[in-house]
Amino acid sequence: MIKDFQKLLKEKHIDYYIVPTDDDHQSEMVGDYYQVRAYLSGFDGSAGTLLVTPENAYLWTDGRYFIQAAKQLEDSITLMKMRQKGVPTILEFLSEHVEDGDVIGFDGQTMTYQFVNQLEDVLDVDYEIKCIDLVKDFWKDRPERSHEKAYIYDKQYHGMSAGEKIEIIQEYMKENDCQSHIITTLDDIAWTFNLRGNDIPCSPTALAFALITLDKSFLYLQQGTYDLDLVKAYQQENIFMKDYLDIYQDAADLKGRVLLSTNNVNYELVNQIQCEIVDGTNPSQAFKSIKNDVEIKNTKNAHIKDGVAVTKFMYWLKNNFEKINMDEISVSDKLLSFRSQQDLFIEPSFTTICAYQENAALMHYHATKENHSDIHDGLLLIDSGGQYLDGTTDITRTFVLGKVTDKQKYHFTKVLQGFLALQNAHFLYGAIGLSLDILARYPIWADNIDYQCGTGHGVGHFLNVHEGPHGIRPVIRSTENTPLEAGMVVTDEPGVYLEGEYGIRHENELLVVEGVENEYGQFMHFETLTYVPIDLDGIDIDLLSNQERKWLNEYHKEVYNKISPYLTNAEKDWLKEYTKEI
Amino acid sequence: MIKDFQKLLKEKHIDYYIVPTDDDHQSEMVGDYYQVRAYLSGFDGSAGTLLVTPENAYLWTDGRYFIQAAKQLEDSITLMKMRQKGVPTILEFLSEHVEDGDVIGFDGQTMTYQFVNQLEDVLDVDYEIKCIDLVKDFWKDRPERSHEKAYIYDKQYHGMSAGEKIEIIQEYMKENDCQSHIITTLDDIAWTFNLRGNDIPCSPTALAFALITLDKSFLYLQQGTYDLDLVKAYQQENIFMKDYLDIYQDAADLKGRVLLSTNNVNYELVNQIQCEIVDGTNPSQAFKSIKNDVEIKNTKNAHIKDGVAVTKFMYWLKNNFEKINMDEISVSDKLLSFRSQQDLFIEPSFTTICAYQENAALMHYHATKENHSDIHDGLLLIDSGGQYLDGTTDITRTFVLGKVTDKQKYHFTKVLQGFLALQNAHFLYGAIGLSLDILARYPIWADNIDYQCGTGHGVGHFLNVHEGPHGIRPVIRSTENTPLEAGMVVTDEPGVYLEGEYGIRHENELLVVEGVENEYGQFMHFETLTYVPIDLDGIDIDLLSNQERKWLNEYHKEVYNKISPYLTNAEKDWLKEYTKEI
Repeated sequence: MIKDFQKLLKEKHIDYYIVPTDDDHQSEMVGDYYQVRAYLSGFDGSAGTLLVTPENAYLWTDGRYFIQAAKQLEDSITLMKMRQKGVPTILEFLSEHVEDGDVIGFDGQTMTYQFVNQLEDVLDVDYEIKCIDLVKDFWKDRPERSHEKAYIYDKQYHGMSAGEKIEIIQEYMKENDCQSHIITTLDDIAWTFNLRGNDIPCSPTALAFALITLDKSFLYLQQGTYDLDLVKAYQQENIFMKDYLDIYQDAADLKGRVLLSTNNVNYELVNQIQCEIVDGTNPSQAFKSIKNDVEIKNTKNAHIKDGVAVTKFMYWLKNNFEKINMDEISVSDKLLSFRSQQDLFIEPSFTTICAYQENAALMHYHATKENHSDIHDGLLLIDSGGQYLDGTTDITRTFVLGKVTDKQKYHFTKVLQGFLALQNAHFLYGAIGLSLDILARYPIWADNIDYQCGTGHGVGHFLNVHEGPHGIRPVIRSTENTPLEAGMVVTDEPGVYLEGEYGIRHENELLVVEGVENEYGQFMHFETLTYVPIDLDGIDIDLLSNQERKWLNEYHKEVYNKISPYLTNAEKDWLKEYTKEI
Repeated sequence: MIKDFQKLLKEKHIDYYIVPTDDDHQSEMVGDYYQVRAYLSGFDGSAGTLLVTPENAYLWTDGRYFIQAAKQLEDSITLMKMRQKGVPTILEFLSEHVEDGDVIGFDGQTMTYQFVNQLEDVLDVDYEIKCIDLVKDFWKDRPERSHEKAYIYDKQYHGMSAGEKIEIIQEYMKENDCQSHIITTLDDIAWTFNLRGNDIPCSPTALAFALITLDKSFLYLQQGTYDLDLVKAYQQENIFMKDYLDIYQDAADLKGRVLLSTNNVNYELVNQIQCEIVDGTNPSQAFKSIKNDVEIKNTKNAHIKDGVAVTKFMYWLKNNFEKINMDEISVSDKLLSFRSQQDLFIEPSFTTICAYQENAALMHYHATKENHSDIHDGLLLIDSGGQYLDGTTDITRTFVLGKVTDKQKYHFTKVLQGFLALQNAHFLYGAIGLSLDILARYPIWADNIDYQCGTGHGVGHFLNVHEGPHGIRPVIRSTENTPLEAGMVVTDEPGVYLEGEYGIRHENELLVVEGVENEYGQFMHFETLTYVPIDLDGIDIDLLSNQERKWLNEYHKEVYNKISPYLTNAEKDWLKEYTKEI
């Protein structure tokens, strides 16, 4: 395969051809049409960048995929293990190899503008960039670009018309003296236009672009993905349909100043624009992060249903353990079946992480049909979530099965302490994620352990399970220097991951709410959205303070109150025991 | 007084004359020579800005001084209460009143460059600035500018020659392509040149300027403040003496690029400079914040002596309460007498805050001969510190005297919980003050109370008791976005302040040290420098977790071990009781 592709490179006089893993929108997950890297290299993990020269080929991927990539890659492709000592990044590699006169090619529509900028920064030779989709004719049986039905998200679930949303964006545009605004990120488009679809795995979005001007807006959708009713409904809000790929031409025709987030845009689109670009985060980012009352009411409902599904699953798991054969795949499927029974459930909100013992120490482990573990005594970590029409969920529980060691219980409890401290935090308005992060880390940092990832992320409303601009992290990302505002949803998910041993994570979703306002300012705290027991079998009660016990008991009481009405009698009895006071 | 001064304004055709409270160096406290605002207005608090027009006069000061200023101000001066609703800032006031053609005057040497910049930003009329020290001839019996003996700080206390320090500063200058560097802040000069003096209350610094070039340096000191030995010693390190005020002319003659921190410089000096100014924090700021081994060894010793003094005082206080008459002044003097008995003690490191009950709720309360309280049952907060040749100390203890209420004990214990959580924190290298701040605030935020100031500040080494660039605060100041580095000293001082009731603060100094380095990174924690009991009479033991009790017991054990060898038998027995396990 790669040999034939290299012949094509020679014909076209291209010295380096780069194949990232991206769609036109920098989506977190991409559809089959965009799996070019997998097609050319054989490696089908979720992340990787392929670099092909007429003579050689290299694939960069991260630690999650070293083993899988080594197995799957065509022999002639060199595996470049990211972040390993002595392994250059693709930028470093190119800066060492590219010479005067060389031609670097890529499909500009799936290449990020950011990467090309970085390339310009590191290369100090005279090279040429060629935007060309070489795969177009090369990949004969390429799947079509996904073109599932797009639909308008019913107002009962979110409470705000597209017209109202566009109006506040237009206000923002006026304040920044912009006459137009292009949106390329699918969740921003989905929120702004109340548009939903099914073109991206685990995200109910439609492949689309959007252009907002000061008096009307345009939605760029693939023909055949929408009906006349949708066209009419949008027309009433001064929104007009255009063909998906027309955005590239329309971008070229823009005049004045266009607001565009160049952090999340493909190279080709920016390249088309001739007018002045005002670079900045999409205003919809901040707007959609603050959920309104209708969204909050709906998301609370979605979380109850999700809690019922996961609690029922927990009952099944604890009661069938060692009675029937279980493996990471079968258990994962069982959980999905419980979610599927819930009202308004659409699909998982991300690929479930179901990881037994040492597998859970790999933070992004995904069991596959070819490669997964049977489940026996020990710890089983399941990180999963659902897309419901009334909300998106994300929950992690670590389940104790059979015998566990004192050390496992110790770490289970330490993670719980940080989890509870964050969930129960009160703070003055103005606090950012960084201000709170240490609460979750404090107990495990005391043992010189860290979980080396953020503590929490925002969550969309029947949208992406990862959503900015806020987050809870030990360092500030440029976009996360934003106070936690009432109405934001954020996860609380500390963990302990011991290589070769086990992984533990507890995760709830939290809603930021206002508390008392007094002479000191506006106090804020969290309201818990997620209701599923923390497995009492994992807790070393003696390690908990009275305060921590009180927090856990109060939480478990709420779990019982909210979830038990939807359970069978047997499940109810069991839940009573698993939410008892300690 | 002010009437005569207004006549002078008319004569000189000045429409607005501004009198800040500052010296040539923006020192935190200023000497008698610089008390111009107090002389003209009658108000002698530590902070205030006077604005005089030919017809009117206004004094801006903050909440600490509203009562005092109202009493002391000359009748014709309007008190402008800062941060009160409807009261404009001086900048707002000027922007409302200054008209085309008006002349604004001030002494450029005691006016900050920053203020004049802000003035330029807010005034959009055609005004004229006149740098003129109108007080020079007006104030007949003005005290002389302080000119105490300056001396070289013995290397045994700090371990690094001026030559070595200047070399690393010159390296920094070269990296930033600067041919010269003017230093105006007295503590930066003191650290760089190992120069000490006695021109500023509570700070062992000498009035001085410094100029560093790439091959030699100049110290600008007042004539008569140093001897020939000092001149010779400095010559050996390529440092040459100049007269204090010559800096203004030398600044005018500079060529190339000069490194200068315009955040902390007077207007006149910047005005003199004709060459390019490279604006940036003085590199000495960062260097001096990280104490070397010699400084750490010395400062530990100073803290033991200070701990002995404060512990002896505590013994005296608890044993003489209600036996002899006590008031805030007499008790404060007693504490000073204990400190004075310690080896190498020079002076207090700041004006002692000795505040009984509701007085302690005013965060910057200072008892005066005219205005102070007698001490009976209740809480007595004492925030004090010493300048020793081997180090600077800063400690707060809240002492329980006679009967206290349950509410007082509750808050005493809540403050203790935050204090202990911060003191015992372990964190990954990279954490900044903001990352840790919530640890100290968490228990009192839970009750919707805040202490509305930072949690901690850096401390100098036989230098200013407040020192940057780091700190522990709930918001990031531009200079505090710096990781906590091993060798930094920082205070840990949460509190509860209830207006009209009482104030509680516990304060220790902490040294940042490295802990374990492993696959997660470099762990850091604190080593406590301050050893004085936390008054057990104030603690509600039932509120403490086992962990917190353990922390307190361990701390008290160390207090006993380190302090008892220097006590009388009676004091020792008492200390045993006051450091007992709870």
